[in-house]
Amino acid sequence: MDPIYLVDLCGTMVFAISGAMAANRKHIDVFGATFTGFVTAIGGGSLRDVFLNLRPVWVDDGNYLLAILIGVIISIVANKQIDKLARTLFFFDAIGIGFFCIVGVQKSLSYGSSEVAAVVLGMFSAVMGGVIRDTLLNETPLIFHKEIYATACLAGAILYVILRSVGIDQSANIFFSAALVFIIRIVAVKYKLSLPSIGNYRN
Amino acid sequence: MDPIYLVDLCGTMVFAISGAMAANRKHIDVFGATFTGFVTAIGGGSLRDVFLNLRPVWVDDGNYLLAILIGVIISIVANKQIDKLARTLFFFDAIGIGFFCIVGVQKSLSYGSSEVAAVVLGMFSAVMGGVIRDTLLNETPLIFHKEIYATACLAGAILYVILRSVGIDQSANIFFSAALVFIIRIVAVKYKLSLPSIGNYRN
Amino acid sequence: MDPIYLVDLCGTMVFAISGAMAANRKHIDVFGATFTGFVTAIGGGSLRDVFLNLRPVWVDDGNYLLAILIGVIISIVANKQIDKLARTLFFFDAIGIGFFCIVGVQKSLSYGSSEVAAVVLGMFSAVMGGVIRDTLLNETPLIFHKEIYATACLAGAILYVILRSVGIDQSANIFFSAALVFIIRIVAVKYKLSLPSIGNYRN
Repeated sequence: MDPIYLVDLCGTMVFAISGAMAANRKHIDVFGATFTGFVTAIGGGSLRDVFLNLRPVWVDDGNYLLAILIGVIISIVANKQIDKLARTLFFFDAIGIGFFCIVGVQKSLSYGSSEVAAVVLGMFSAVMGGVIRDTLLNETPLIFHKEIYATACLAGAILYVILRSVGIDQSANIFFSAALVFIIRIVAVKYKLSLPSIGNYRN
Repeated sequence: MDPIYLVDLCGTMVFAISGAMAANRKHIDVFGATFTGFVTAIGGGSLRDVFLNLRPVWVDDGNYLLAILIGVIISIVANKQIDKLARTLFFFDAIGIGFFCIVGVQKSLSYGSSEVAAVVLGMFSAVMGGVIRDTLLNETPLIFHKEIYATACLAGAILYVILRSVGIDQSANIFFSAALVFIIRIVAVKYKLSLPSIGNYRN
Repeated sequence: MDPIYLVDLCGTMVFAISGAMAANRKHIDVFGATFTGFVTAIGGGSLRDVFLNLRPVWVDDGNYLLAILIGVIISIVANKQIDKLARTLFFFDAIGIGFFCIVGVQKSLSYGSSEVAAVVLGMFSAVMGGVIRDTLLNETPLIFHKEIYATACLAGAILYVILRSVGIDQSANIFFSAALVFIIRIVAVKYKLSLPSIGNYRN
């Protein structure tokens, strides 16, 4: 079994858990939690695929929907426990966005997008699920006021494009670039790094 | 004239009315109401078609836009009267989501999606217009806190896939499955049934 | 260089500025402003292209992303100055939506959409970026309570379809129709014209 496919399924499940947990915190019903988990998990990748004029993977491959279902069930059955595992979940999330992002860059390039568009589409793959989740739950998207998140994706995506242009092996490249996303994300949260906002400089 | 096509047009009109009425209640101008009616009516089906890598039907078939326009005009001209007809509108809405959902399942299958994805896409066809409407109007989507709604769609969609696998005639299948959505929806509202939320069990 | 292509790039840049400025006003970080600028600039056109079952232009043509980047940088470097240039920006915006709208109508027709769908898709091209921007920033979309905006687009789009059917030269048609959008927009803002809302007539 292709290791990247497996990571993709695991990442989908982790995203489904994060979406369902966010809905649970708002006391939304079981269906709403499932729905939110689903949208969080498939939102980013689906948008990327639609922009590449492809069908989203989950339309043809039922395993993604199964992974989401498992994630939602975990979030329901183990709701309290997961809340206590926030740190563990955060690590998985950081790994997940790293892989989602870089796999997104690679897929976009392999379907002929320009390199700069591939960077954008990779970042979209990783963050748009969360953006849609927050918008659905009527909150300002987390990526707007959270420690460096999408920026970590951008850095990793750019590294991938650079390493690819110098001819590095694809698997190694995916690994290194996803690792960069992961490391930036961990460091940013540990040291509470964040980007400045422009509005603050106003007066 | 194909009866399913006719039902699809009527459902589109009912959804346009519901969208425009929601905007009217927020004192949004005539254009905004038209826009909201339009997005509510085409949102779900368009998303399904985009995920199937097809053009939404209304891009090629002007009758859908005409049905929406009629729906919006009705909601403007007969705004007060429709408010009093809430019960009638609710029945039409229940019929509408039933057909939208099942026709969505059927279309997805006929374009080669997996069965589980067809269930999801059918449900999307029926509910995503309303989700987009509520998000635009800056409200938490109704499906998150309303009596069993999308769940009724899921049940009907699953019934369709099961009946199809045992070889039932397609027209009969559409009728029975849409009827299940309708019945669950009516029963849920009459007895105020709703799904539990997980967050409530927390402490 | 094709003048319409150049106008399209300039319009994209102006939209990126307007998106980034809206984020700046909410004290969102630099990345969030870039993200909002990007989504505002490509949202409408991308939706149109997806509905036409095409790839959005920016996926293949890096110049659009470059135009957005320049727009975002301008909004960061010259944040205070642009605020004072509100009137100038408004003129550019009015020119921009005029061209976005009419070029959207033309593209839709050239890819075989029905005329009425082309009018809708043209209007979408011009306004959906702003709708997505406002939804992301958790505000009721501006087009719901602003002086005639999308209506100006509709008028221009309808004029284009009419002039096209009587056989007017395409370039002249684009110019005249975009000018109509621009003029309606300017007049509406100058005289604070707005459409009535239905809800107001209720009691």
